[in-house]
Amino acid sequence: MESKHEILNLFGENVRKYRRLLNISQEELAHKADLHRTYIGMIERAEKNITLVNIEKIANALEVKIEDLLKFSNGKE
Amino acid sequence: MESKHEILNLFGENVRKYRRLLNISQEELAHKADLHRTYIGMIERAEKNITLVNIEKIANALEVKIEDLLKFSNGKE
Repeated sequence: MESKHEILNLFGENVRKYRRLLNISQEELAHKADLHRTYIGMIERAEKNITLVNIEKIANALEVKIEDLLKFSNGKE
Repeated sequence: MESKHEILNLFGENVRKYRRLLNISQEELAHKADLHRTYIGMIERAEKNITLVNIEKIANALEVKIEDLLKFSNGKE
């Protein structure tokens, strides 16, 4: 399901991208970020309007800056 | 009231800083961002855990990037 809010789609895609770069599951990311696995899934699918406190938790768990999660990636990965 | 979440304090301080740079009131910012004036006040005082969709609205209304609202300012202003 795509969100009508482009920013949520972008954020979710970036969470998935950096999670895969770390080679960890949604469950492992959830554990690192102290969030629930189903919540991580909803964020990656842009089904939830995430709050700033949880954005920070996920960025820390993914070992990236918050702004990295808000950038369009350029081209192929 | 200071939030225990440093990121909310930082965000709120930056919203206030850029709002004052634009020389607009909380009410004017609220109007530009299509949010309520009391909500802007709560965000500036870090009393609310803002969502990503509203972060984007405020950044657009302040004519800055989201990441500008998440940066510590260096020194005097």
